[in-house]
Amino acid sequence: MPGFGKIFNVTTFGESHRKATGCVVDGCPAGLPLCADDIAKELKRRQPGTEGPFTSERAEDDVPEILSGVFGGKTLGTPIAIIIKNNDQNPEDYEALKDCYRPGHADWTWEAKYGFRDWRGGGRSSGRETTGRVAAGAVAKVFLAANGITVHSWIDAAAGMEDQENINAKLQALKANGDSAGCLVACRISGLPAGLGEPVFDKFDALLSHAILSIGACKGIEFGTGFAAASSTGSANNDPPALPPNSAGSTKAGDTFTSNNSGGIMGGISNGMDVFFRAAFKPPPSIAAEQSTIDRSGSPVRIAIHGRHDICLAPRIVPVVEAMAALVTADLLLLQRCARV
Amino acid sequence: MPGFGKIFNVTTFGESHRKATGCVVDGCPAGLPLCADDIAKELKRRQPGTEGPFTSERAEDDVPEILSGVFGGKTLGTPIAIIIKNNDQNPEDYEALKDCYRPGHADWTWEAKYGFRDWRGGGRSSGRETTGRVAAGAVAKVFLAANGITVHSWIDAAAGMEDQENINAKLQALKANGDSAGCLVACRISGLPAGLGEPVFDKFDALLSHAILSIGACKGIEFGTGFAAASSTGSANNDPPALPPNSAGSTKAGDTFTSNNSGGIMGGISNGMDVFFRAAFKPPPSIAAEQSTIDRSGSPVRIAIHGRHDICLAPRIVPVVEAMAALVTADLLLLQRCARV
Amino acid sequence: MPGFGKIFNVTTFGESHRKATGCVVDGCPAGLPLCADDIAKELKRRQPGTEGPFTSERAEDDVPEILSGVFGGKTLGTPIAIIIKNNDQNPEDYEALKDCYRPGHADWTWEAKYGFRDWRGGGRSSGRETTGRVAAGAVAKVFLAANGITVHSWIDAAAGMEDQENINAKLQALKANGDSAGCLVACRISGLPAGLGEPVFDKFDALLSHAILSIGACKGIEFGTGFAAASSTGSANNDPPALPPNSAGSTKAGDTFTSNNSGGIMGGISNGMDVFFRAAFKPPPSIAAEQSTIDRSGSPVRIAIHGRHDICLAPRIVPVVEAMAALVTADLLLLQRCARV
Amino acid sequence: MPGFGKIFNVTTFGESHRKATGCVVDGCPAGLPLCADDIAKELKRRQPGTEGPFTSERAEDDVPEILSGVFGGKTLGTPIAIIIKNNDQNPEDYEALKDCYRPGHADWTWEAKYGFRDWRGGGRSSGRETTGRVAAGAVAKVFLAANGITVHSWIDAAAGMEDQENINAKLQALKANGDSAGCLVACRISGLPAGLGEPVFDKFDALLSHAILSIGACKGIEFGTGFAAASSTGSANNDPPALPPNSAGSTKAGDTFTSNNSGGIMGGISNGMDVFFRAAFKPPPSIAAEQSTIDRSGSPVRIAIHGRHDICLAPRIVPVVEAMAALVTADLLLLQRCARV
Repeated sequence: MPGFGKIFNVTTFGESHRKATGCVVDGCPAGLPLCADDIAKELKRRQPGTEGPFTSERAEDDVPEILSGVFGGKTLGTPIAIIIKNNDQNPEDYEALKDCYRPGHADWTWEAKYGFRDWRGGGRSSGRETTGRVAAGAVAKVFLAANGITVHSWIDAAAGMEDQENINAKLQALKANGDSAGCLVACRISGLPAGLGEPVFDKFDALLSHAILSIGACKGIEFGTGFAAASSTGSANNDPPALPPNSAGSTKAGDTFTSNNSGGIMGGISNGMDVFFRAAFKPPPSIAAEQSTIDRSGSPVRIAIHGRHDICLAPRIVPVVEAMAALVTADLLLLQRCARV
Repeated sequence: MPGFGKIFNVTTFGESHRKATGCVVDGCPAGLPLCADDIAKELKRRQPGTEGPFTSERAEDDVPEILSGVFGGKTLGTPIAIIIKNNDQNPEDYEALKDCYRPGHADWTWEAKYGFRDWRGGGRSSGRETTGRVAAGAVAKVFLAANGITVHSWIDAAAGMEDQENINAKLQALKANGDSAGCLVACRISGLPAGLGEPVFDKFDALLSHAILSIGACKGIEFGTGFAAASSTGSANNDPPALPPNSAGSTKAGDTFTSNNSGGIMGGISNGMDVFFRAAFKPPPSIAAEQSTIDRSGSPVRIAIHGRHDICLAPRIVPVVEAMAALVTADLLLLQRCARV
Repeated sequence: MPGFGKIFNVTTFGESHRKATGCVVDGCPAGLPLCADDIAKELKRRQPGTEGPFTSERAEDDVPEILSGVFGGKTLGTPIAIIIKNNDQNPEDYEALKDCYRPGHADWTWEAKYGFRDWRGGGRSSGRETTGRVAAGAVAKVFLAANGITVHSWIDAAAGMEDQENINAKLQALKANGDSAGCLVACRISGLPAGLGEPVFDKFDALLSHAILSIGACKGIEFGTGFAAASSTGSANNDPPALPPNSAGSTKAGDTFTSNNSGGIMGGISNGMDVFFRAAFKPPPSIAAEQSTIDRSGSPVRIAIHGRHDICLAPRIVPVVEAMAALVTADLLLLQRCARV
Repeated sequence: MPGFGKIFNVTTFGESHRKATGCVVDGCPAGLPLCADDIAKELKRRQPGTEGPFTSERAEDDVPEILSGVFGGKTLGTPIAIIIKNNDQNPEDYEALKDCYRPGHADWTWEAKYGFRDWRGGGRSSGRETTGRVAAGAVAKVFLAANGITVHSWIDAAAGMEDQENINAKLQALKANGDSAGCLVACRISGLPAGLGEPVFDKFDALLSHAILSIGACKGIEFGTGFAAASSTGSANNDPPALPPNSAGSTKAGDTFTSNNSGGIMGGISNGMDVFFRAAFKPPPSIAAEQSTIDRSGSPVRIAIHGRHDICLAPRIVPVVEAMAALVTADLLLLQRCARV
């Protein structure tokens, strides 16, 4: 509830069709050079594309405004509040949907939890909630970059296809049918020192899983060889070390082990190799094709969801995955400062 | 660091070859009937089998002792401390391994993190650490049962095989070769009310992922259709509601939706259907076959790990998965009491 | 770092002379009627008076803007972000002070902690930081009121005087000398159910102390008979019960005990009587009279701090004390929902 | 609920008359030399005196047993579990009291909170709960000592008297009357670097207040000039700096300021001077003189509490105050490692 992260902590806020979304980053160390452009460029990556048929046509123009925590171009050590105003609010688009539950969406569960819901564009369960994550993640990325660490994500597959040409063709066909597609996103964290991760409950991979599965629509995650490890053998899957652990905990050669089946994490702690994981995202539930559902009274209705919706979460989900991975890594990098006397 | 869980919180402690392992459960509500047998029976499930060739022969006899928090057979609302004494400590088994790093183990990363390590049986990175989790999870299960909720796990596959006979044959062959095998564990949580889960960072599935990936050797998790959702379509994957959300948030018919591709969680919140997930566990890294590694000085050495080791984490990991899933569910069940005015 | 409060949690942000201050309230239950006026009226209480010689003349016009978390006049259960724009920024007032350390202020310690500081009006260590607390506390007060609980603070003494006429005369004289005065603020929480407070580390009085001492310039707190209890006897100080504890934990007659030396809290838990405490606030350190200090190079300098400053923190600190007390009470009221099976 | 402390975290457990009390210290850095004697010597300070008429005659022989977290005489970075067995359990002493509420005790509130209580010696609300705090504080003190920091507490006054001879005479007289006395305990933390404390909610003084008021029977705290500051003036109360803040944040000369009215904390952050506070403790509520109270049915009864009880919490409370102050300081010392890029 109080946000995410033990030291490098983020709280986000904002419903899809209210005045603004945003975040407060608390615990970012003082003295880090930071400007609004660092955040704007990440937000731009998650905005709908200006071309291509596969992304929402919502005219989001996400301009971050830093309200606090930066002075003379550097972080003060105080909470960094960032807001992104909502310029494009057409709640009337959703008027027709307010009394029924869109299949695959959180409309139903939200109402079960709280007794009522903001039906305008999904309210807080909208993908728009990720603007705050991306803004906070941008701050984390600047901090990581200052420590030689990079986080990079990409589309591993979409609509069951792996190369871009096939993906495009498949999405085109789905769009014509008023349908949507799932995707796989991969992520690599490079330049990591060995030693990051708390070894029992807050393992590096446990925190990454928490972070990535907290993104709406994510249905699974795997590290290194992942699910394939479940049908592998110890002799094939074990990674042998190549260099001894540096006594200062700063080994980061990328060649500390002779293989990386583990995805850079052993016993929950980074081993100096790249951290690597893949995450599965379900197809966006808003589709133009007609579906069965019920209304508030429980009566069956048929709905076709028109409006501006993504056919596939990729590529817009990619910077969100990076942001969450960066937040986890920044937090563990700081926690590691407390590991030794 | 301060354990796991916001309200129903657990801290564990203990190294493999020290005096005891254990846990402190803080935040369990007062008035719950609880006795040592509730805990003993779960610990028994994670002990090595008395028959069969696939599990460790370590003669663990895990007797839980409740030190506090229970009075007159009921929980007091105060911290419940439980210890499990180590009766079988043969640290000399590990003497030969103290100067080298076992491939696939946390020896190397632990040393990178803290500068040194308890080399006796992996210290705290040993599977023995899970005794504290199972003991705490046993308390959670009693609380859940009092609310009509059950958590049930099972082996979905092991050594790449799905039926028990094939699994046995494959493990037998691997054992003969001094090798080990991975496994898939499935878990189902039944009897859940709709509405559990915090909708942004602490989604039900995000917390379950955190919990399950915090188990050593876990390499992946998926919910409902999971990774298959990444190549599915919205029209196939969406789950349509069948009943309206009960205004009291207590819908738990198990027939609230007409399908359960989501695995019982939508937008991070339980939808009244069973929660379902699968987790992948790598092969135990301790194998009798000879492997390459290095010693402290970085010189290459060959090691064969003899002693008492599991060929496959299943079936012993099954109650650990249940325990962690129960802890998450208990915590969210309590948090939900605070969701409405 | 991640704000204040376990369930009813608040994060604040904002420096004195940047764009805005504000807060995010996370964990407020859904369905609470809330509007901007509820917050505006509390902020108004902490604004400088329009008359009287004792308060800052800074023309603050604190208009709260609710960015999220409210829909149709009711809280959604999602984070409530509130910002208060800074309309009156005269950083040049502080230009002269940027290279020296004002005695009694946090200039020096802030720089020791972070390596540099926002010298404009104290940055985040300014009293302006309390706007976020008052806004968040206003939400808490609405929640408490819905549960029949009120929080009321008042000036118990100022400048060593207890009646308003003497206070005014004394402050007038201090102002003429370019000096300032401390004050005592009392607070009473009424309508409380018995049973609030976590009995070991998070006792009701421990959390109130944390909350009140986190207000800049607070130097002490006492509950019930407080420091006088240190020279009292058990026979005089013990409060005898008058009614048995209601088994539902809802006793709140205000006549549960025959005396209230304890200040309504026993063993860290509310006993159904009013909670009562007093807090001591030091004189505002910004004074017009000349003082000795040093500059960045360590050279002695003399400074006289002109500009708009309070002669005494009372009465503006009164709503801040109420806000913090309300936040603690709201949090414990929710936590108590989890105390029993 | 999950213990106390953000990084250097402690959870305690144990009722007065059950098998053991104890603590788990999680977050203590690896590599700290630690042995059971470090803990035993602090526990010895809180045991009842072998002579003198003023302390409980309960024959506590508190032997700490370290169950985990230490290897080869050094901390591993893993949770340090410490138990102290209860050797002296005479629950029958309390049989007579089980159906009535002792005035000034937590019997009544505990029952209001949880619906029932462990009536044997106050259960968890007993002073015996502090054994876990003292054990955890002992670990913190070793860590602080390794950083040149000492925490020292003493009796400032008892029974309204300040010199030991008068205190003894007064307590003797009170004992003869079957009565008890309050006390004031002072505490000084020396050798502190400047810069410790989180500047808004987790100010150094706010956390110390939380920690000290969480000790049962504490009714107030004040820092530096404390309550006297409320009737002082800015010109008299301000502390002028003598040396500039060291850019490395490590100034700890003890002569950084020319006076120390603030008690070593400005704006919630340590300023390099000694931190100084005083805390008020009420008289122990268990007295031999007859008092009025009620039983479960609400009927008035008279009780005289015989058995082994302290006449005054001093001197046994002194090491408890030190322990709590040490825990806060250790936590902030670690957090400060994360303050700058």
